[in-house]
Amino acid sequence: MSTWNDNFSFKATHTRPSPVREILAVIKQPGMISFAGGMPAPEVFPVEEFYESAHLLKDKGTELLQYGTTDGNVELREFLTEFMQPRLGRKVGMDEIFLTTGSQQALDLFSWAMLDPGDVVITEDPSYMAAITVFMNHGGVCRGIPCDADGILVDKIPPLIESLRAEGKKVKFLYTIVNFQNPGGMTMSVERRKKLAEIAEKYNIGIFEDDPYGYVRYEGDHLPSIFSFDKVGNVLYAGSFSKILAPGTRTGWVIGDPAIIRKMCVFKQSTDLCSSSVDQALVADYCKKGYLTQHLPAIIANYRKRRDFMEESMKRHLAPLGVTWVKPQGGFFYWIDVPGVNTDQLMRRALDKKVAFIQGSAFAVEEGACIHNARLNYTYCSNDVIEEGIKRIAAAIVELKAEAEGIKA
Amino acid sequence: MSTWNDNFSFKATHTRPSPVREILAVIKQPGMISFAGGMPAPEVFPVEEFYESAHLLKDKGTELLQYGTTDGNVELREFLTEFMQPRLGRKVGMDEIFLTTGSQQALDLFSWAMLDPGDVVITEDPSYMAAITVFMNHGGVCRGIPCDADGILVDKIPPLIESLRAEGKKVKFLYTIVNFQNPGGMTMSVERRKKLAEIAEKYNIGIFEDDPYGYVRYEGDHLPSIFSFDKVGNVLYAGSFSKILAPGTRTGWVIGDPAIIRKMCVFKQSTDLCSSSVDQALVADYCKKGYLTQHLPAIIANYRKRRDFMEESMKRHLAPLGVTWVKPQGGFFYWIDVPGVNTDQLMRRALDKKVAFIQGSAFAVEEGACIHNARLNYTYCSNDVIEEGIKRIAAAIVELKAEAEGIKA
Repeated sequence: MSTWNDNFSFKATHTRPSPVREILAVIKQPGMISFAGGMPAPEVFPVEEFYESAHLLKDKGTELLQYGTTDGNVELREFLTEFMQPRLGRKVGMDEIFLTTGSQQALDLFSWAMLDPGDVVITEDPSYMAAITVFMNHGGVCRGIPCDADGILVDKIPPLIESLRAEGKKVKFLYTIVNFQNPGGMTMSVERRKKLAEIAEKYNIGIFEDDPYGYVRYEGDHLPSIFSFDKVGNVLYAGSFSKILAPGTRTGWVIGDPAIIRKMCVFKQSTDLCSSSVDQALVADYCKKGYLTQHLPAIIANYRKRRDFMEESMKRHLAPLGVTWVKPQGGFFYWIDVPGVNTDQLMRRALDKKVAFIQGSAFAVEEGACIHNARLNYTYCSNDVIEEGIKRIAAAIVELKAEAEGIKA
Repeated sequence: MSTWNDNFSFKATHTRPSPVREILAVIKQPGMISFAGGMPAPEVFPVEEFYESAHLLKDKGTELLQYGTTDGNVELREFLTEFMQPRLGRKVGMDEIFLTTGSQQALDLFSWAMLDPGDVVITEDPSYMAAITVFMNHGGVCRGIPCDADGILVDKIPPLIESLRAEGKKVKFLYTIVNFQNPGGMTMSVERRKKLAEIAEKYNIGIFEDDPYGYVRYEGDHLPSIFSFDKVGNVLYAGSFSKILAPGTRTGWVIGDPAIIRKMCVFKQSTDLCSSSVDQALVADYCKKGYLTQHLPAIIANYRKRRDFMEESMKRHLAPLGVTWVKPQGGFFYWIDVPGVNTDQLMRRALDKKVAFIQGSAFAVEEGACIHNARLNYTYCSNDVIEEGIKRIAAAIVELKAEAEGIKA
């Protein structure tokens, strides 16, 4: 018998695998339709344009194959300081930005810098499950604040901080996905963004402004970031190329006060030394040629159609069953409410019918939340697959309701 | 004032930056000669052969740009199970291997799986500083065992485990760099490898067998891994493409019992989801064409010459000053002993003379160890640069000794 099970850490015996990643094996079954992941459609990848940079593997080969610096490719960081200027309200300095192995790594490095066991993280409820998992792995305790169509209910935050502090707890930071929230789909209003920056200053807490979907907006104007309202340097902004270019490059970025940037870089030294020089150089070249901004409208148009198609499909098949949702202005997900149906049960039934999604409970921060919700991704499947998948979910709902009626009767 | 300094975690205020990474700024000064890093020479990168795979960015573009699985590229894992067979004693299964963002990440993921605060890690003393830092970041307490030319003094391990257990401490695993140790340069004997596997079984602890340099052997036969002597599944083996292909691809691998592999993969989900699909596909293609095995002799021949050149240079300039060393049979480093000279001081003086190395204390596990040692990398610099750098170190030693004599007189 090997030693591992006897010697695992407390974290190892208590951490939860990602429902999305764990469901991958199931999703790969033949005939399975998946609304479960958050994957871009392969058709929208700018393969030709990205390939144009491949010559760098030859022309700058010795540079691309060598270790990079921990803070990442200088050209790409320079590009990003320009690119981000409108959203951030100013052009940040090179000591305020570094690159990560996907924006998932930003969550881990930030947690390293901020969390001691028992420290409290305030989040939207529901929220991105892999963020909650990281915070918990680092000993953080997540407390969820409910949301409405304008995002997190900011007025509930000060009383929560005050009551937690009265209990002697340390509130370290607030985590928010400001645009087209995952899983909720809603976008935080400008008023609330301002308010959040004020709260962070007043209560001396950090804000992790996660914005992987921010540039994938289908209608309406881009809103200024929370970062842009911050007067003291309390807001860390994280972006990613995963949804606007290619997740396979594992390239994300983080912008914030040099104090927190430096500290996260020190932890990056020990978690992976540096990110891929190959990926960063290819992404930098692609961006500098103007392709990022040129190609974005095509991605947006493609996903907008899929969102609209899923909307129509849900109106046909799910609305008659009482299912409700708010149409997202951007991003990757519908968040539906299925009154009277436990979506853990619904997911199992749906898998029998060869359609996958993620049940709401996976995103719940406070216990027992979101048991009637489900997250449906629309960026990956084609229209007829979306239609067929929604039909199957509808059939699963009908069956579960009929069975519940049968038990009652 | 921003919030960060007030809210950093205990770890953030106590972790140490990597001396190598922190010294990078200094190393970049014009005229500076660096023996400090552990970087491959750019001239040995197989740029042309690696570039041959660039067409995959077009031909398999949608696959390379998409998220990968957390355990990594199947073709590359399959290749590695074949490639590693002689060293591991058997062909491992696909559930016993996964890919990491460089082998540095393997250290972090393993620590996640194994370490609670206060748990003990036994290491060689001296040892790889970024490993020690990761273990410490995770709350581990490192205890060092001295080494001789045949590696770690295995007979000292059981008494240490027993005395630690008598104190109520948990010894979780032993960390070793078996071949051409970093920084010590020595290689563990076969007898000691066998003994280590037995100790791990008897005391129910894990072994992390780190082998980034194992394939860079200049003379003598490859030795079987500790993994190959393990009968119960207690040994985790970690390899890397950083020294035998290209660190810029951030591609490493880990082989072990499925129980520990699965657990590390769960933590990988939350630290970076998956490694680069681009890098893994390019590396897989390169390896499958046979280039890895074809090209390795060229890398080895190149580095062997540099090692031999540094050896001769040190004989000329350092041996007359009483400096001693053991010639490494492979790997990247000389570990020198400078009797009567504190190498922290020597490093500062050497930097004044525009030559950099890493002082021994950076690798010390037990306090006060290695104050007369220094690690010198020979794979990065050309011959005349090596000669000039060694001369400058000699001059720095002469100065320090003269000053010490002056003070005594």
